[in-house]
Amino acid sequence: MIDTIIISGGNIQNGFALDFLKKRIEESRGEKITLVAADKGMEWFMKNREFIPDLAIGDFDSLSEEGQKYMESLKGPEIIRLKPEKDDSDTQSAVNQMIRKGAKDILILGATGTRLDHVLANLGLLSMGKEQGVRIAIADQWNYITLAESGTILHREEQFGKYVSFFTVGGDVTGLTLRGFKYPLNGYHLTVEDSGLTASNEISEETAEILYESGQLLMIMSRD
Amino acid sequence: MIDTIIISGGNIQNGFALDFLKKRIEESRGEKITLVAADKGMEWFMKNREFIPDLAIGDFDSLSEEGQKYMESLKGPEIIRLKPEKDDSDTQSAVNQMIRKGAKDILILGATGTRLDHVLANLGLLSMGKEQGVRIAIADQWNYITLAESGTILHREEQFGKYVSFFTVGGDVTGLTLRGFKYPLNGYHLTVEDSGLTASNEISEETAEILYESGQLLMIMSRD
Repeated sequence: MIDTIIISGGNIQNGFALDFLKKRIEESRGEKITLVAADKGMEWFMKNREFIPDLAIGDFDSLSEEGQKYMESLKGPEIIRLKPEKDDSDTQSAVNQMIRKGAKDILILGATGTRLDHVLANLGLLSMGKEQGVRIAIADQWNYITLAESGTILHREEQFGKYVSFFTVGGDVTGLTLRGFKYPLNGYHLTVEDSGLTASNEISEETAEILYESGQLLMIMSRD
Repeated sequence: MIDTIIISGGNIQNGFALDFLKKRIEESRGEKITLVAADKGMEWFMKNREFIPDLAIGDFDSLSEEGQKYMESLKGPEIIRLKPEKDDSDTQSAVNQMIRKGAKDILILGATGTRLDHVLANLGLLSMGKEQGVRIAIADQWNYITLAESGTILHREEQFGKYVSFFTVGGDVTGLTLRGFKYPLNGYHLTVEDSGLTASNEISEETAEILYESGQLLMIMSRD
Protein backbone atom coordinates (compact mmCIF):
# COMPACT_ATOMS: atom_id res chain seq x y z
CA MET A 1 0.00 0.00 0.00
CA ILE A 2 1.31 3.43 -0.98
CA ASP A 3 2.59 5.34 2.07
CA THR A 4 4.10 8.38 0.34
CA ILE A 5 3.08 10.52 -2.62
CA ILE A 6 5.65 12.95 -4.00
CA ILE A 7 4.49 15.73 -6.32
CA SER A 8 7.34 16.85 -8.53
CA GLY A 9 7.79 19.79 -10.85
CA GLY A 10 7.42 18.03 -14.23
CA ASN A 11 4.31 18.15 -16.41
CA ILE A 12 1.25 17.42 -14.36
CA GLN A 13 -2.30 16.88 -15.59
CA ASN A 14 -4.35 18.44 -12.83
CA GLY A 15 -7.60 16.50 -13.23
CA PHE A 16 -5.71 13.22 -13.37
CA ALA A 17 -3.55 14.06 -10.34
CA LEU A 18 -6.57 15.13 -8.28
CA ASP A 19 -8.56 11.98 -9.06
CA PHE A 20 -5.54 9.81 -8.52
CA LEU A 21 -4.73 11.33 -5.15
CA LYS A 22 -8.32 11.10 -3.92
CA LYS A 23 -8.56 7.45 -4.99
CA ARG A 24 -5.30 6.53 -3.24
CA ILE A 25 -6.37 8.27 -0.03
CA GLU A 26 -9.74 6.47 -0.19
CA GLU A 27 -7.99 3.11 -0.67
CA SER A 28 -5.67 3.77 2.27
CA ARG A 29 -8.66 3.58 4.68
CA GLY A 30 -7.26 5.92 7.22
CA GLU A 31 -3.63 4.77 6.95
CA LYS A 32 -1.56 7.94 6.72
CA ILE A 33 -0.22 8.82 3.26
CA THR A 34 2.58 11.40 3.52
CA LEU A 35 2.28 14.11 0.88
CA VAL A 36 5.53 15.68 -0.32
CA ALA A 37 6.10 18.74 -2.53
CA ALA A 38 9.41 18.47 -4.40
CA ASP A 39 10.42 22.05 -5.21
CA LYS A 40 8.14 23.35 -8.01
CA GLY A 41 5.67 20.59 -7.05
CA MET A 42 4.51 23.09 -4.39
CA GLU A 43 2.70 24.96 -7.17
CA TRP A 44 0.35 22.03 -7.60
CA PHE A 45 -0.56 22.24 -3.90
CA MET A 46 -1.06 25.99 -4.30
CA LYS A 47 -3.63 25.28 -7.04
CA ASN A 48 -5.29 22.46 -5.08
CA ARG A 49 -5.57 23.85 -1.58
CA GLU A 50 -7.62 20.94 -0.22
CA PHE A 51 -4.29 19.10 0.02
CA ILE A 52 -1.53 20.42 2.30
CA PRO A 53 1.88 18.79 1.91
CA ASP A 54 3.46 17.23 5.01
CA LEU A 55 6.93 18.02 3.66
CA ALA A 56 8.38 20.45 1.13
CA ILE A 57 11.90 19.80 -0.09
CA GLY A 58 14.15 21.44 -2.67
CA ASP A 59 16.49 24.32 -3.33
CA PHE A 60 13.31 26.07 -4.52
CA ASP A 61 15.14 27.76 -7.39
CA SER A 62 12.52 26.47 -9.81
CA LEU A 63 9.60 27.46 -7.55
CA SER A 64 7.86 30.71 -8.50
CA GLU A 65 7.81 33.65 -6.09
CA GLU A 66 4.08 33.09 -5.63
CA GLY A 67 4.77 29.45 -4.78
CA GLN A 68 7.45 30.45 -2.26
CA LYS A 69 5.03 32.84 -0.55
CA TYR A 70 2.33 30.20 -0.45
CA MET A 71 4.78 27.71 1.06
CA GLU A 72 5.84 30.18 3.76
CA SER A 73 2.21 30.98 4.56
CA LEU A 74 1.52 27.34 5.42
CA LYS A 75 1.83 26.32 9.04
CA GLY A 76 1.74 22.56 8.50
CA PRO A 77 4.63 21.30 6.40
CA GLU A 78 8.18 20.62 7.40
CA ILE A 79 10.41 22.53 4.97
CA ILE A 80 13.84 21.20 4.00
CA ARG A 81 15.94 23.71 2.06
CA LEU A 82 18.76 22.23 0.00
CA LYS A 83 21.80 24.01 -1.36
CA PRO A 84 21.24 25.06 -5.00
CA GLU A 85 24.44 23.32 -6.23
CA LYS A 86 23.89 19.65 -5.69
CA ASP A 87 24.26 16.31 -7.40
CA ASP A 88 20.67 15.17 -6.97
CA SER A 89 17.53 16.44 -8.66
CA ASP A 90 14.71 17.73 -6.48
CA THR A 91 12.75 14.55 -7.13
CA GLN A 92 15.70 12.40 -6.13
CA SER A 93 16.28 14.44 -2.97
CA ALA A 94 12.63 14.03 -2.01
CA VAL A 95 12.81 10.27 -2.58
CA ASN A 96 16.03 9.91 -0.56
CA GLN A 97 14.61 11.99 2.26
CA MET A 98 11.45 9.89 2.43
CA ILE A 99 13.41 6.62 2.35
CA ARG A 100 15.44 7.92 5.31
CA LYS A 101 12.13 8.63 7.07
CA GLY A 102 11.05 5.01 6.53
CA ALA A 103 8.86 5.17 3.40
CA LYS A 104 8.37 1.72 1.83
CA ASP A 105 6.00 2.41 -1.09
CA ILE A 106 6.39 5.72 -2.89
CA LEU A 107 4.36 7.09 -5.78
CA ILE A 108 5.65 10.06 -7.76
CA LEU A 109 3.46 12.41 -9.79
CA GLY A 110 4.94 15.14 -12.02
CA ALA A 111 8.03 13.02 -12.81
CA THR A 112 7.38 12.93 -16.56
CA GLY A 113 7.37 15.61 -19.24
CA THR A 114 9.12 16.77 -22.38
CA ARG A 115 12.70 16.65 -21.01
CA LEU A 116 13.61 12.99 -21.55
CA ASP A 117 16.77 13.30 -19.44
CA HIS A 118 14.61 14.12 -16.43
CA VAL A 119 12.27 11.24 -17.24
CA LEU A 120 15.12 8.71 -17.53
CA ALA A 121 16.79 10.00 -14.35
CA ASN A 122 13.46 9.50 -12.59
CA LEU A 123 13.11 5.98 -14.01
CA GLY A 124 16.54 5.29 -12.50
CA LEU A 125 15.02 6.04 -9.09
CA LEU A 126 12.89 2.90 -9.37
CA SER A 127 16.04 0.75 -9.41
CA MET A 128 17.68 2.85 -6.71
CA GLY A 129 14.62 2.26 -4.50
CA LYS A 130 14.53 -1.46 -5.22
CA GLU A 131 18.15 -1.76 -4.06
CA GLN A 132 16.97 -0.42 -0.71
CA GLY A 133 13.81 -2.52 -0.54
CA VAL A 134 11.52 0.42 -1.36
CA ARG A 135 8.84 0.17 -4.03
CA ILE A 136 8.64 3.26 -6.23
CA ALA A 137 6.13 3.99 -8.99
CA ILE A 138 5.71 6.92 -11.37
CA ALA A 139 2.31 7.86 -12.74
CA ASP A 140 0.87 10.38 -15.15
CA GLN A 141 -2.31 10.59 -17.17
CA TRP A 142 -1.06 8.08 -19.76
CA ASN A 143 1.41 5.86 -17.89
CA TYR A 144 1.78 3.88 -14.69
CA ILE A 145 5.39 2.79 -14.38
CA THR A 146 6.92 0.42 -11.88
CA LEU A 147 9.35 -2.48 -11.58
CA ALA A 148 7.43 -5.77 -11.73
CA GLU A 149 8.66 -8.54 -9.44
CA SER A 150 8.71 -12.08 -10.77
CA GLY A 151 5.44 -13.67 -9.67
CA THR A 152 3.37 -10.52 -10.17
CA ILE A 153 -0.30 -11.21 -10.92
CA LEU A 154 -2.24 -8.51 -12.77
CA HIS A 155 -6.04 -8.32 -12.63
CA ARG A 156 -7.56 -7.05 -15.86
CA GLU A 157 -10.40 -5.37 -13.95
CA GLU A 158 -7.99 -3.19 -12.00
CA GLN A 159 -5.46 -2.39 -14.66
CA PHE A 160 -4.40 1.14 -15.52
CA GLY A 161 -5.19 1.71 -19.22
CA LYS A 162 -5.31 -0.85 -21.99
CA TYR A 163 -1.67 -1.68 -22.70
CA VAL A 164 1.06 -3.36 -20.66
CA SER A 165 4.68 -3.09 -21.81
CA PHE A 166 7.89 -4.55 -20.44
CA PHE A 167 11.47 -3.36 -20.73
CA THR A 168 14.82 -4.49 -19.39
CA VAL A 169 16.56 -2.26 -16.87
CA GLY A 170 20.32 -2.33 -16.32
CA GLY A 171 20.87 -5.59 -18.22
CA ASP A 172 19.01 -8.55 -19.73
CA VAL A 173 15.97 -10.21 -18.20
CA THR A 174 16.24 -13.99 -18.48
CA GLY A 175 13.50 -16.62 -18.63
CA LEU A 176 10.65 -14.15 -19.13
CA THR A 177 7.28 -15.87 -19.14
CA LEU A 178 4.07 -13.92 -19.76
CA ARG A 179 0.78 -15.78 -19.25
CA GLY A 180 -2.73 -14.45 -19.82
CA PHE A 181 -1.47 -11.86 -22.32
CA LYS A 182 -2.45 -11.37 -25.97
CA TYR A 183 1.19 -11.98 -26.85
CA PRO A 184 2.45 -14.62 -24.37
CA LEU A 185 6.11 -15.47 -23.88
CA ASN A 186 7.77 -18.57 -22.51
CA GLY A 187 11.23 -18.39 -20.97
CA TYR A 188 12.31 -15.56 -23.27
CA HIS A 189 15.74 -13.93 -22.93
CA LEU A 190 14.87 -10.23 -23.23
CA THR A 191 17.52 -7.70 -24.27
CA VAL A 192 17.36 -3.94 -24.78
CA GLU A 193 17.70 -4.51 -28.54
CA ASP A 194 14.29 -6.14 -28.74
CA SER A 195 12.40 -3.57 -26.68
CA GLY A 196 9.74 -3.43 -29.39
CA LEU A 197 8.81 -7.07 -28.84
CA THR A 198 7.39 -6.54 -25.36
CA ALA A 199 5.78 -3.15 -25.96
CA SER A 200 2.01 -2.62 -26.15
CA ASN A 201 0.92 -6.05 -24.95
CA GLU A 202 -2.61 -6.55 -23.57
CA ILE A 203 -4.09 -8.67 -20.81
CA SER A 204 -6.36 -11.25 -22.48
CA GLU A 205 -7.54 -13.28 -19.46
CA GLU A 206 -9.09 -12.31 -16.12
CA THR A 207 -5.62 -12.39 -14.59
CA ALA A 208 -2.17 -12.33 -16.12
CA GLU A 209 1.09 -13.58 -14.66
CA ILE A 210 4.66 -12.32 -15.02
CA LEU A 211 7.58 -14.64 -14.24
CA TYR A 212 11.30 -14.30 -14.85
CA GLU A 213 14.57 -15.68 -13.56
CA SER A 214 16.98 -12.75 -13.33
CA GLY A 215 17.29 -9.05 -14.12
CA GLN A 216 15.04 -6.08 -13.48
CA LEU A 217 11.79 -5.71 -15.39
CA LEU A 218 10.25 -2.30 -15.99
CA MET A 219 6.50 -2.44 -16.50
CA ILE A 220 4.54 0.39 -18.10
CA MET A 221 0.76 0.28 -18.11
CA SER A 222 -0.52 2.85 -20.53
CA ARG A 223 -3.50 4.36 -22.28
CA ASP A 224 -3.87 6.81 -25.15
CA MET B 1 26.20 12.29 -42.22
CA ILE B 2 22.47 11.54 -41.96
CA ASP B 3 21.25 9.57 -45.00
CA THR B 4 17.69 8.82 -43.88
CA ILE B 5 15.02 10.79 -42.01
CA ILE B 6 11.98 8.88 -40.77
CA ILE B 7 8.90 10.82 -39.71
CA SER B 8 6.86 8.79 -37.25
CA GLY B 9 3.38 9.21 -35.85
CA GLY B 10 4.25 10.39 -32.30
CA ASN B 11 4.02 13.97 -31.10
CA ILE B 12 5.68 16.28 -33.56
CA GLN B 13 6.38 20.00 -33.17
CA ASN B 14 5.87 21.28 -36.68
CA GLY B 15 8.07 24.37 -36.60
CA PHE B 16 10.90 22.39 -35.06
CA ALA B 17 10.59 19.52 -37.55
CA LEU B 18 10.51 21.91 -40.53
CA ASP B 19 13.61 23.83 -39.41
CA PHE B 20 15.40 20.64 -38.52
CA LEU B 21 14.70 19.00 -41.87
CA LYS B 22 15.73 22.09 -43.85
CA LYS B 23 18.98 22.37 -41.90
CA ARG B 24 19.87 18.70 -42.41
CA ILE B 25 19.16 18.94 -46.16
CA GLU B 26 21.31 22.09 -46.35
CA GLU B 27 24.14 20.33 -44.51
CA SER B 28 23.96 17.32 -46.83
CA ARG B 29 25.19 19.50 -49.75
CA GLY B 30 23.41 17.58 -52.45
CA GLU B 31 23.92 14.11 -50.94
CA LYS B 32 20.53 12.40 -51.07
CA ILE B 33 18.61 12.15 -47.80
CA THR B 34 15.83 9.57 -48.06
CA LEU B 35 12.59 10.78 -46.46
CA VAL B 36 10.33 8.12 -44.97
CA ALA B 37 6.77 8.40 -43.66
CA ALA B 38 6.08 5.75 -41.02
CA ASP B 39 2.29 5.25 -41.03
CA LYS B 40 0.67 8.31 -39.38
CA GLY B 41 3.91 10.21 -40.13
CA MET B 42 2.36 10.74 -43.59
CA GLU B 43 0.10 13.38 -42.00
CA TRP B 44 3.14 15.55 -41.37
CA PHE B 45 4.02 15.39 -45.07
CA MET B 46 0.40 16.24 -45.92
CA LYS B 47 0.74 19.41 -43.82
CA ASN B 48 4.16 20.26 -45.24
CA ARG B 49 3.79 19.63 -48.95
CA GLU B 50 7.18 21.01 -49.90
CA PHE B 51 8.54 17.64 -48.75
CA ILE B 52 7.47 14.44 -50.53
CA PRO B 53 8.46 11.17 -48.85
CA ASP B 54 10.51 8.69 -50.86
CA LEU B 55 8.94 5.80 -48.98
CA ALA B 56 5.76 5.30 -46.96
CA ILE B 57 5.56 2.23 -44.73
CA GLY B 58 3.00 0.92 -42.26
CA ASP B 59 -0.25 -0.95 -41.88
CA PHE B 60 -1.76 2.55 -42.09
CA ASP B 61 -4.38 1.72 -39.46
CA SER B 62 -3.41 4.82 -37.51
CA LEU B 63 -3.34 7.05 -40.62
CA SER B 64 -6.47 9.20 -41.11
CA GLU B 65 -8.64 8.76 -44.22
CA GLU B 66 -7.46 12.15 -45.42
CA GLY B 67 -3.86 11.02 -44.98
CA GLN B 68 -4.54 7.80 -46.92
CA LYS B 69 -6.06 9.79 -49.80
CA TYR B 70 -3.13 12.17 -49.82
CA MET B 71 -0.69 9.24 -49.88
CA GLU B 72 -2.50 7.62 -52.80
CA SER B 73 -2.55 10.92 -54.71
CA LEU B 74 1.25 11.10 -54.62
CA LYS B 75 3.10 9.71 -57.61
CA GLY B 76 6.55 9.70 -56.05
CA PRO B 77 6.81 7.45 -53.01
CA GLU B 78 7.22 3.72 -52.83
CA ILE B 79 4.44 2.40 -50.57
CA ILE B 80 4.98 -0.70 -48.42
CA ARG B 81 1.77 -1.98 -46.82
CA LEU B 82 2.27 -4.19 -43.77
CA LYS B 83 -0.24 -6.59 -42.24
CA PRO B 84 -2.10 -4.95 -39.31
CA GLU B 85 -1.22 -7.77 -36.84
CA LYS B 86 2.51 -7.64 -36.45
CA ASP B 87 5.24 -7.75 -33.86
CA ASP B 88 6.97 -4.52 -34.84
CA SER B 89 5.77 -0.95 -34.44
CA ASP B 90 5.50 1.23 -37.54
CA THR B 91 8.66 3.06 -36.54
CA GLN B 92 10.56 -0.19 -36.09
CA SER B 93 9.33 -1.51 -39.45
CA ALA B 94 10.48 1.70 -41.13
CA VAL B 95 13.91 1.44 -39.49
CA ASN B 96 14.30 -2.24 -40.44
CA GLN B 97 13.26 -1.54 -44.01
CA MET B 98 15.75 1.31 -44.37
CA ILE B 99 18.57 -0.78 -42.87
CA ARG B 100 17.80 -3.47 -45.46
CA LYS B 101 18.02 -0.76 -48.13
CA GLY B 102 21.49 0.19 -46.87
CA ALA B 103 20.87 3.18 -44.59
CA LYS B 104 23.83 3.89 -42.26
CA ASP B 105 22.76 7.02 -40.38
CA ILE B 106 19.07 7.37 -39.55
CA LEU B 107 17.32 10.22 -37.79
CA ILE B 108 13.79 9.74 -36.46
CA LEU B 109 11.33 12.57 -35.80
CA GLY B 110 7.96 11.95 -34.15
CA ALA B 111 9.33 9.09 -32.03
CA THR B 112 8.54 10.75 -28.69
CA GLY B 113 5.30 11.68 -26.99
CA THR B 114 3.14 10.99 -23.97
CA ARG B 115 3.11 7.16 -24.29
CA LEU B 116 6.34 6.20 -22.53
CA ASP B 117 6.14 2.59 -23.74
CA HIS B 118 6.43 3.88 -27.31
CA VAL B 119 9.31 6.15 -26.34
CA LEU B 120 11.25 3.34 -24.64
CA ALA B 121 10.59 0.92 -27.52
CA ASN B 122 11.98 3.58 -29.86
CA LEU B 123 15.05 4.09 -27.63
CA GLY B 124 15.62 0.33 -27.96
CA LEU B 125 15.98 0.88 -31.72
CA LEU B 126 19.22 2.79 -31.10
CA SER B 127 20.81 -0.37 -29.65
CA MET B 128 19.26 -2.54 -32.34
CA GLY B 129 20.83 -0.27 -34.99
CA LYS B 130 24.22 -0.23 -33.29
CA GLU B 131 24.29 -4.05 -33.36
CA GLN B 132 24.02 -3.78 -37.14
CA GLY B 133 26.52 -0.93 -37.51
CA VAL B 134 23.82 1.68 -38.14
CA ARG B 135 23.74 4.98 -36.31
CA ILE B 136 20.25 6.00 -35.18
CA ALA B 137 19.21 9.23 -33.48
CA ILE B 138 15.87 10.49 -32.23
CA ALA B 139 15.09 14.20 -32.08
CA ASP B 140 12.28 16.42 -30.95
CA GLN B 141 12.00 20.04 -29.93
CA TRP B 142 13.54 19.41 -26.52
CA ASN B 143 15.81 16.38 -26.98
CA TYR B 144 18.47 15.00 -29.29
CA ILE B 145 19.09 11.38 -28.35
CA THR B 146 21.78 9.06 -29.59
CA LEU B 147 24.30 6.46 -28.43
CA ALA B 148 27.67 8.13 -27.86
CA GLU B 149 30.73 6.12 -28.88
CA SER B 150 33.77 6.21 -26.63
CA GLY B 151 36.03 8.94 -28.03
CA THR B 152 33.17 11.26 -28.97
CA ILE B 153 34.15 14.94 -29.01
CA LEU B 154 31.38 17.50 -28.56
CA HIS B 155 31.77 21.10 -29.71
CA ARG B 156 29.95 23.53 -27.47
CA GLU B 157 29.23 25.83 -30.44
CA GLU B 158 27.29 23.10 -32.25
CA GLN B 159 25.49 21.49 -29.37
CA PHE B 160 21.74 20.95 -29.30
CA GLY B 161 20.37 22.81 -26.25
CA LYS B 162 22.13 23.54 -22.99
CA TYR B 163 22.23 20.19 -21.18
CA VAL B 164 23.98 16.90 -21.89
CA SER B 165 22.92 13.78 -19.99
CA PHE B 166 24.21 10.23 -20.02
CA PHE B 167 22.50 6.96 -19.18
CA THR B 168 23.46 3.30 -19.26
CA VAL B 169 21.71 1.06 -21.77
CA GLY B 170 21.40 -2.70 -21.31
CA GLY B 171 23.96 -2.89 -18.50
CA ASP B 172 26.66 -0.90 -16.72
CA VAL B 173 29.06 1.50 -18.44
CA THR B 174 32.57 1.07 -17.05
CA GLY B 175 35.43 3.55 -16.87
CA LEU B 176 33.34 6.58 -17.81
CA THR B 177 35.45 9.70 -18.17
CA LEU B 178 33.89 13.07 -18.97
CA ARG B 179 36.26 15.96 -19.76
CA GLY B 180 35.32 19.57 -20.50
CA PHE B 181 32.05 19.25 -18.60
CA LYS B 182 30.79 21.25 -15.61
CA TYR B 183 30.63 17.97 -13.69
CA PRO B 184 33.61 15.90 -14.91
CA LEU B 185 34.04 12.20 -14.20
CA ASN B 186 37.12 10.02 -14.17
CA GLY B 187 36.84 6.27 -14.76
CA TYR B 188 33.40 6.07 -13.17
CA HIS B 189 31.46 2.81 -13.06
CA LEU B 190 27.96 3.97 -14.06
CA THR B 191 24.90 1.88 -13.15
CA VAL B 192 21.21 2.43 -13.79
CA GLU B 193 20.75 3.13 -10.05
CA ASP B 194 22.73 6.35 -10.29
CA SER B 195 21.07 7.74 -13.40
CA GLY B 196 20.62 11.06 -11.61
CA LEU B 197 24.37 11.56 -11.31
CA THR B 198 24.94 11.96 -15.04
CA ALA B 199 21.77 13.89 -15.85
CA SER B 200 21.74 17.60 -16.79
CA ASN B 201 25.48 18.08 -17.20
CA GLU B 202 26.79 21.03 -19.23
CA ILE B 203 29.75 21.53 -21.57
CA SER B 204 32.09 24.00 -19.86
CA GLU B 205 34.99 24.13 -22.38
CA GLU B 206 35.12 24.75 -26.13
CA THR B 207 35.09 21.00 -26.64
CA ALA B 208 34.18 18.12 -24.37
CA GLU B 209 35.28 14.51 -24.53
CA ILE B 210 33.49 11.28 -23.65
CA LEU B 211 35.50 8.12 -22.97
CA TYR B 212 34.50 4.74 -21.58
CA GLU B 213 35.68 1.16 -21.54
CA SER B 214 32.58 -1.02 -21.97
CA GLY B 215 28.82 -0.84 -22.21
CA GLN B 216 26.46 1.30 -24.22
CA LEU B 217 26.07 4.99 -23.37
CA LEU B 218 22.87 6.85 -24.18
CA MET B 219 23.40 10.59 -24.63
CA ILE B 220 20.56 13.09 -24.44
CA MET B 221 21.20 16.70 -25.37
CA SER B 222 18.29 18.78 -24.18
CA ARG B 223 16.82 22.23 -23.75
CA ASP B 224 13.80 23.57 -21.91
